[in-house]
Amino acid sequence: MPEMMTAVIKPGPGAGLELTQRPIPAIGPNEVLVKVKAASICGTDLHIYKWDKWAASRLRPPVIVGHEVCGEVVARGAMVAEPQIGDFVSLESHVICNICAYCRTGRGHICQNTRLIGVDRDGGFAEYIAIDAQNAWVNPPEMPVEIAVLQENFGNAVHTAFTTDVTSKKVLITGCGPVGVMTIAVCKAAGARAIYATDVSEYRLRLARVMGADLAVNARDGVIEQIRAATDGEGVDVLLEMSGAPSAIEQGFTLLKTGGEAALLGVAPGPFTFDWNHHIVFKAARVYGVSGRKLWETWYQSRGLIRSGAVDLSPVVTHRFSLEEYDKAFEVMASGESGKVVLFPET
Amino acid sequence: MPEMMTAVIKPGPGAGLELTQRPIPAIGPNEVLVKVKAASICGTDLHIYKWDKWAASRLRPPVIVGHEVCGEVVARGAMVAEPQIGDFVSLESHVICNICAYCRTGRGHICQNTRLIGVDRDGGFAEYIAIDAQNAWVNPPEMPVEIAVLQENFGNAVHTAFTTDVTSKKVLITGCGPVGVMTIAVCKAAGARAIYATDVSEYRLRLARVMGADLAVNARDGVIEQIRAATDGEGVDVLLEMSGAPSAIEQGFTLLKTGGEAALLGVAPGPFTFDWNHHIVFKAARVYGVSGRKLWETWYQSRGLIRSGAVDLSPVVTHRFSLEEYDKAFEVMASGESGKVVLFPET
Amino acid sequence: MPEMMTAVIKPGPGAGLELTQRPIPAIGPNEVLVKVKAASICGTDLHIYKWDKWAASRLRPPVIVGHEVCGEVVARGAMVAEPQIGDFVSLESHVICNICAYCRTGRGHICQNTRLIGVDRDGGFAEYIAIDAQNAWVNPPEMPVEIAVLQENFGNAVHTAFTTDVTSKKVLITGCGPVGVMTIAVCKAAGARAIYATDVSEYRLRLARVMGADLAVNARDGVIEQIRAATDGEGVDVLLEMSGAPSAIEQGFTLLKTGGEAALLGVAPGPFTFDWNHHIVFKAARVYGVSGRKLWETWYQSRGLIRSGAVDLSPVVTHRFSLEEYDKAFEVMASGESGKVVLFPET
Amino acid sequence: MPEMMTAVIKPGPGAGLELTQRPIPAIGPNEVLVKVKAASICGTDLHIYKWDKWAASRLRPPVIVGHEVCGEVVARGAMVAEPQIGDFVSLESHVICNICAYCRTGRGHICQNTRLIGVDRDGGFAEYIAIDAQNAWVNPPEMPVEIAVLQENFGNAVHTAFTTDVTSKKVLITGCGPVGVMTIAVCKAAGARAIYATDVSEYRLRLARVMGADLAVNARDGVIEQIRAATDGEGVDVLLEMSGAPSAIEQGFTLLKTGGEAALLGVAPGPFTFDWNHHIVFKAARVYGVSGRKLWETWYQSRGLIRSGAVDLSPVVTHRFSLEEYDKAFEVMASGESGKVVLFPET
Repeated sequence: MPEMMTAVIKPGPGAGLELTQRPIPAIGPNEVLVKVKAASICGTDLHIYKWDKWAASRLRPPVIVGHEVCGEVVARGAMVAEPQIGDFVSLESHVICNICAYCRTGRGHICQNTRLIGVDRDGGFAEYIAIDAQNAWVNPPEMPVEIAVLQENFGNAVHTAFTTDVTSKKVLITGCGPVGVMTIAVCKAAGARAIYATDVSEYRLRLARVMGADLAVNARDGVIEQIRAATDGEGVDVLLEMSGAPSAIEQGFTLLKTGGEAALLGVAPGPFTFDWNHHIVFKAARVYGVSGRKLWETWYQSRGLIRSGAVDLSPVVTHRFSLEEYDKAFEVMASGESGKVVLFPET
Repeated sequence: MPEMMTAVIKPGPGAGLELTQRPIPAIGPNEVLVKVKAASICGTDLHIYKWDKWAASRLRPPVIVGHEVCGEVVARGAMVAEPQIGDFVSLESHVICNICAYCRTGRGHICQNTRLIGVDRDGGFAEYIAIDAQNAWVNPPEMPVEIAVLQENFGNAVHTAFTTDVTSKKVLITGCGPVGVMTIAVCKAAGARAIYATDVSEYRLRLARVMGADLAVNARDGVIEQIRAATDGEGVDVLLEMSGAPSAIEQGFTLLKTGGEAALLGVAPGPFTFDWNHHIVFKAARVYGVSGRKLWETWYQSRGLIRSGAVDLSPVVTHRFSLEEYDKAFEVMASGESGKVVLFPET
Repeated sequence: MPEMMTAVIKPGPGAGLELTQRPIPAIGPNEVLVKVKAASICGTDLHIYKWDKWAASRLRPPVIVGHEVCGEVVARGAMVAEPQIGDFVSLESHVICNICAYCRTGRGHICQNTRLIGVDRDGGFAEYIAIDAQNAWVNPPEMPVEIAVLQENFGNAVHTAFTTDVTSKKVLITGCGPVGVMTIAVCKAAGARAIYATDVSEYRLRLARVMGADLAVNARDGVIEQIRAATDGEGVDVLLEMSGAPSAIEQGFTLLKTGGEAALLGVAPGPFTFDWNHHIVFKAARVYGVSGRKLWETWYQSRGLIRSGAVDLSPVVTHRFSLEEYDKAFEVMASGESGKVVLFPET
Repeated sequence: MPEMMTAVIKPGPGAGLELTQRPIPAIGPNEVLVKVKAASICGTDLHIYKWDKWAASRLRPPVIVGHEVCGEVVARGAMVAEPQIGDFVSLESHVICNICAYCRTGRGHICQNTRLIGVDRDGGFAEYIAIDAQNAWVNPPEMPVEIAVLQENFGNAVHTAFTTDVTSKKVLITGCGPVGVMTIAVCKAAGARAIYATDVSEYRLRLARVMGADLAVNARDGVIEQIRAATDGEGVDVLLEMSGAPSAIEQGFTLLKTGGEAALLGVAPGPFTFDWNHHIVFKAARVYGVSGRKLWETWYQSRGLIRSGAVDLSPVVTHRFSLEEYDKAFEVMASGESGKVVLFPET
């Protein structure tokens, strides 16, 4: 095995990333070393690329970026029982403490000591990554690499959708980025009565239709009227908010029926004004903040949906680049004219 | 409107039924009169036909038989707000009291004062039936009569399946009569990971496969081994018991995983010996008795599944007869070589 | 029986109420006539008294005010099965339609056709009131009138608390008006680990302590610091928001632990700015709007808590007036220096 | 520190136990060494003492007996983060694998690889015990030793009661051994409307009344009639089965209301005949097998109930012995004339 590897890092404060050589990481007794087969770009990575306020407050560069990763286990620590060398794994990006009250009650997804790969510690836009053994989810060997790499982000979609009850219900999904369109597929697989989707990108609305949306509407184009009309004036039973845009949140809650459920994954740009009474209290709405994936219940659910064929994620990946082409990949991602953009370390 | 109508009645104690003329029923202030378009035969009707112990203890003949009914509203009482004259309706067969604690807490399906049409009061194997307005569920006019008539029984399937969580789970359905195969369709629509089905009739196992079973096994032919093999030795997450056969119950619980869920709709022939410790206590199983349909939540859920196209019930009806041919219809039903058998009053 | 009765009405637009004579109301076939024994004043009545924006938009005077009522059934319509003449009843103030999808699925508390007594139709600050039989909840004859009259409002407390899981949890109640202090009693009865309460009235904070609060803090006096200190810096598992004050909502969500539950009964003065990300999304909070009482599940739960002695409501009523003294009663209610204020028609 | 310690062991197949000297155990990197302050006797220990069929099939002697233990941490392995040396801890007796699907989805209490101390590996009827760090639950230093030692068994009570919804409900507890009477206290703390209890020991029925039972009835003495009378003929909402006696199970389900919940902790002597239709299916009962404690949610719940003072366990311990007096202790335990019997290694 070589000693050095190629990696995309945030070298220091400021915009942009850098391709560089780094030592292949050493592993602890409970860790495995994974040779990366593919790594996809998340909206979070874009924040890091641009070095926005959140990124500046959270990252301590230099750090290898990237947290949506799949690869092969090539080494493991002395105390690791699973996975095995040679296993094809996808990575859970949240490394949790296992000790706090959240971790000890099946709620590790909200562990307050979580360290996120590619943010709080080195990530996967690299040839190798070291990670806790429990974060390596074993895939069947025959799973396509492009599906395997999606699972972390697909888990956000599964977690959000399954926080509510979508079966036989009318569902509105606000925001059709990669996680939004995967959420459409989850709702379709779970037997939603109708799926409505909104976004400002026509590219993404087309992808939403491919993934199963019954109606995909441009958020700037009479969303309230169109979806009211499609629902006999009643609105929707379930809102799955994936955009973080206050205007989309406003539209979503306006369309939510009394007694409805709303699950919120999208992150807003900051505090905003909201009609608490009409949107939540009088409406007897149930509103759920969603964070990450349930560890590891969401992974089991995701596996069930993928293996049964109930969900087909293949249309989600729309662009592929080598690790060296990272700059072009981020440009495509930033354009809104894409589904998921995937980097391949092996050229 | 004529004064008399054709009806199939249980004339008195003993086996068999009788075709006769009866007055078209008068309606009370909260009732509607429905001109029957179709009525299907349930297992319960077969018990009444044969006049078994249960039937002898419950019925007070003469009574018009039949509780799975759809038709058109042709008259309504003075206090009825809905449905309207001309509406195409399916009937909920349980007429509940609206006053007891169950009815007053959204649990009317277990109202202890329920009167069942075709059992406790006149039913729908007839040209007309009088029933409480709240029991008439309005269908879209274009719904095929053969689908509309199935909804009461389909509601048993929906209620049973949705008492558990089947999405992304491995499900075993024991018993592939009409309600069993409709349950398969519900599980498929809701994104079950895999659906296993058992019965002793090869005819019904074929129908189970048509409705979406991944594996349909003859209950006399190594069920435990075949389903263990299909589940990597693990068994199933969910058992939906539709047969009432103690041998099927035993097989089902043997295959149920620790921590699994079992919903029970099938009625056993009597008390039987059961390994309480291994099948429920040590297994931390959750076991639910299921009765009727949730009033009217199940009807809304059923509507969602049918209207979205997530469930296609058309293969379920396999035989059609005129009301006059009721004897032939019961014979087919008793043979086990059928799906649902439907009677049509209008010849 | 006399033909006329004394009643407190909103005679027309504008502040204030009026004592007048009105005909004793006639009853419909599904209604009962109740001779009022006591009626208590709710915050909503205060809005009507003051004729604020909400009242001006909703009420069509003249209307008899008052919706928290108990009394004796003195007449009943032809189709009424329960209650019986002579029964001692408390009234559910929401008269629901029984026909809509909400009413038909056990969610009548959010029926969109609800008509509220004392607001949309004549209420109970009078000697008699006519109301649907299903809205008359039968009490044991020996129940004190002052407890019976509280049950409608107590139901808000029970509904709010039981929307979350308070047993063995740390709970914060923001707002110690009558419903707030009754919520404290519910949490205490259900085995909360600790109960924290806030208000701006020292009178109400004292009442909060009497009803079981472990710590009652003036909302203007370092709430965050005091409750953080009392919870080892961790905050609370459950927030029950009864004030509607944006500042209290902000305090409450700041103190809510990650993964916590918040039930919202308080009505805000209007839209306000809120930190959606930190208070709901990142926190994976579950937030529930609460409206009225679950019909009639909340009434059964309330009955259980009262009859077992788990809850003692007797300290809640702090002031008593005759119907004629209504103006003095509203003055006390408006002062914040009271628990529940009760009117007695029979002087 | 000495090298040898006193311990009560099952030396080989056959009835009885033996007091002996054993080496103080070595600890692994994830383990702690606990100096035992108290250890209490469980029904399971009695099976081991008597060497019944279950014990003979499960144990591989020699093994140190005892799984209800509290003590002080006196040493810890290299990788242990918590607890600290000197911490006063109670032990969770199930050592789970952390790797299987159950452990990875917050359901470690049904981990199929569990190893139980005092059964599958050395237990706590000894001066010291080595155990995984995660199994050592830290108590406040001032907690009485007699309360601390009860927590493992108290967790069974909490887990069973909280598997159902007892607040404002009528609850029947069949079996008033130590876990049964602690379950009474949990139901009382959680605001049950009424608590009924049955047993065949008058000693235990007296203890049931002390712990909060409203009515404690000898199982041989007209249970059905007495509890029917006490519930206005209606029966109970919740059954908590702690006896395993088929006759008690029969009584319990006979008294369970339609739509009721039953949680089952008691282990039956073997398969038995049961009226599946009337007790579960027609009754729409929900039946839950219960095993161990939810890891570690039940421990947090237990802590909340104890620290708030909602539950007072002090009457549960009725007999105290030194470790050397183990034979006398087992005799008392077997008599049915006791609550919890506790052994103290330090004399």
